[in-house]
Amino acid sequence: MNSEKPIRIIASGKYLPVEVSSEELEEKHNLPKGWSEAHSGVISRHHVSFESIGFMGARAIEAALEKANLGLADIDLLISAGATFDYPLPSQSSVIKSELKEGMSCHVPALDVDTTCLSFVSAFEIAAKMLDGDQYKRIVIVSSEIASKGLNSQNPETLTLFGDGAAAFILSYDESSPSAFIKAYFKTWSEGLNHTMIRGGGAVHFFRDYPYDEKLHSFDMDGIKVLKLAAKKLPEFMDFVCKDLSITLAGVDVIVPHQASKAGICLFKKMFDLSAGKVKENIATYGNCIAASIPLLLHDTIEKNEIRRGDLCMLVGTSAGFSIGALLFRY
Amino acid sequence: MNSEKPIRIIASGKYLPVEVSSEELEEKHNLPKGWSEAHSGVISRHHVSFESIGFMGARAIEAALEKANLGLADIDLLISAGATFDYPLPSQSSVIKSELKEGMSCHVPALDVDTTCLSFVSAFEIAAKMLDGDQYKRIVIVSSEIASKGLNSQNPETLTLFGDGAAAFILSYDESSPSAFIKAYFKTWSEGLNHTMIRGGGAVHFFRDYPYDEKLHSFDMDGIKVLKLAAKKLPEFMDFVCKDLSITLAGVDVIVPHQASKAGICLFKKMFDLSAGKVKENIATYGNCIAASIPLLLHDTIEKNEIRRGDLCMLVGTSAGFSIGALLFRY
Repeated sequence: MNSEKPIRIIASGKYLPVEVSSEELEEKHNLPKGWSEAHSGVISRHHVSFESIGFMGARAIEAALEKANLGLADIDLLISAGATFDYPLPSQSSVIKSELKEGMSCHVPALDVDTTCLSFVSAFEIAAKMLDGDQYKRIVIVSSEIASKGLNSQNPETLTLFGDGAAAFILSYDESSPSAFIKAYFKTWSEGLNHTMIRGGGAVHFFRDYPYDEKLHSFDMDGIKVLKLAAKKLPEFMDFVCKDLSITLAGVDVIVPHQASKAGICLFKKMFDLSAGKVKENIATYGNCIAASIPLLLHDTIEKNEIRRGDLCMLVGTSAGFSIGALLFRY
Repeated sequence: MNSEKPIRIIASGKYLPVEVSSEELEEKHNLPKGWSEAHSGVISRHHVSFESIGFMGARAIEAALEKANLGLADIDLLISAGATFDYPLPSQSSVIKSELKEGMSCHVPALDVDTTCLSFVSAFEIAAKMLDGDQYKRIVIVSSEIASKGLNSQNPETLTLFGDGAAAFILSYDESSPSAFIKAYFKTWSEGLNHTMIRGGGAVHFFRDYPYDEKLHSFDMDGIKVLKLAAKKLPEFMDFVCKDLSITLAGVDVIVPHQASKAGICLFKKMFDLSAGKVKENIATYGNCIAASIPLLLHDTIEKNEIRRGDLCMLVGTSAGFSIGALLFRY
C-alpha cells in the first residue's frame, strides 16, 4: 500500500537565541582554542539567556503563521515535538500555546509527541495521518529545545556539541497540490537504551531522594557506542524504508538528516555514497539542537531555495532509545 | 465527514502495585480517620514500592499480549501515553519497550504521546488514524503512571486523591468487525494553564539552580478553579463533539470518564443528566491515576462484561493545560 497522501508544507518559521562562539565556550571551560571545531565540528551554536522552551516555540509558530498569512484560528491542532520541557507538568504544547499572541483567545488543541531527536519526524507522520481536509485542515508542528541546561561541565564533547532553538512547520491537506506525504518508518533497538540518557529527575531517581548531582542530572551519551550501533543497523533499516516503494535513496533529491554529530553525518554520507549537495548540514553553526535540528535545517533549506516544489525529500536520523527513523515526502 | 474506521480493541491488560488504604495514609499524615473518603471519595488506591513506570507498563503490555495470544513481533507500534516518566531522557516508550520480555529481540518502534490526563485518549485517536491494515496492523497503547512520588505532604487533598498503575490496550485494523473508531475531539483553554502544574524540574526551574523544595517540585492543583472552568466549558464542548454526527450523548451506551475527582464526576453526571449505570467509575478504589485512569476503568469495564461488542462508548475527561477531550468508538 503506502499510497501517497496530499499533504503540503505551507510555511515554516524559526527562533534562535543569541549565538555563542566556540571560542567563548573554550575560554569558559578551559579548553584549548579550536577544540570544539576539531572534536565536534561546531564553530558556533545558540544558547538561551532569558528564553524558555515555550517562548521560543511560540515565536517560531508566530513566524510560520505570519509567513502563511494565517491566524491561530486557522490551525486545527498544535503538536509540540521535542524532548526537553519547561515544566514536568503540564504538556509542553499547552505551555507553548499559552505563550502565543492569540493563545488565550483561540482554543486549538495541544498535544506532545516525543521520540527525543526524532520527535519532529514522528510528529510529521502523525500530522500526515490525521490531516483530512475536514476536522484537521492544518496542523502546526513545533520543535523547541533547550539543550544547553542539561550539559555536564566535565564533558567537553557534549558541552560544545549542543545548541538551543526552535522551528515550526504548518502542514495542510491540499488535494490541489502535487506535494505529498509518502511514507515514514521507524525502528527501536533497545540494546542501545543506556547509550544516551539523563538519569536523574524522573521517577527512578526522584529529586526528593537524589539532590542535584551534575553527573546524574546531565545528558550522558556514549557517542562511540551510538555511532557503532547506527553503523550496524542503518543498511538494514534503509532497505526497509524503501521496501514496497518505487524509490531508491539515489533517487531522493534532498536529504535532511538529524545533526547528531559531525562523525555521524560523515558516516551516513560515506555509507550510502551520497553527494555533499544532496545531504544538508548545519551542525557547524547550530550544533545538535535535539528534535529542533531537522526542522531548523529543513526551514533553512527552503529559505535558501535549495529545495524546489516537487522535489523528493527525506528526513532521517537516530534518537535516544535507540531508534532510527526516516520520512519521505514530496515538497 | 467523520466517517467510521474499522478499528477494534482486541485485548487489554493492567498492572497494579500494592493497595494502600485511606486509613494507612490518614495515620501516616496525621489526618482524621475518614478524611480521605469524605474529601476525595477515595477509600483505597495503589502506590508503587519497588516498581518503576517502565516496569508497570511492560507488565501491562505483556498481560494484554497474553490475552490476545500475540507476541511483541505482532505489534507495529508501541505508544506510551502518559505524563510521568522514569528518566527525563530517553522517551518513556523506549524505556517500557526495553523492559518487555521480548524487548531486546523485537524492534517495534516506540513513541510517546502526552496530553497529561488525556494522553490515552489522544493516543487512541492517533492509533486509529495510523492503523491501516498494512504498515500498521496492530498498535499497543500503554498508560503507566506513578503519581505518588510528586505529591506534597502538606496538601492532604492531592495526597489522598492520587494512585499509581498501568493499563495497556491493543488496537487493530479489522474490516471484518463492526467495531469502529468514530471521532475524537479536543480543545485547549490556556486560561487554565496555571491551575495544574509541577513547576520545578524542567528548564524554567532547572534543578541545578533550584534545589528540591516540596512546594516547587510537587503537583499543585487549584481544584476549585479547574472544576469551575470545566463546568463553564463542558456544555459548549459536548455540542461540538456530537456536531455532524447522528449521535447524542443520550445515545451513548457506556461512558468512561477520567477519574479527576469525585466532585468532577458528580458534576459531569448531573450536568448531562446521565444515569449511574452508564457512567463508569473507579475513583473509590483506584484514586486518580493521571492518564492511566481511563484505560484502567475501560479494562475493568470490559472484564466485568459491562460493555458488549457493538456498544457505543465514549472516553471523556479534562487535563492539565487546560484541555477537555472526548473520543467515541463502537466497541
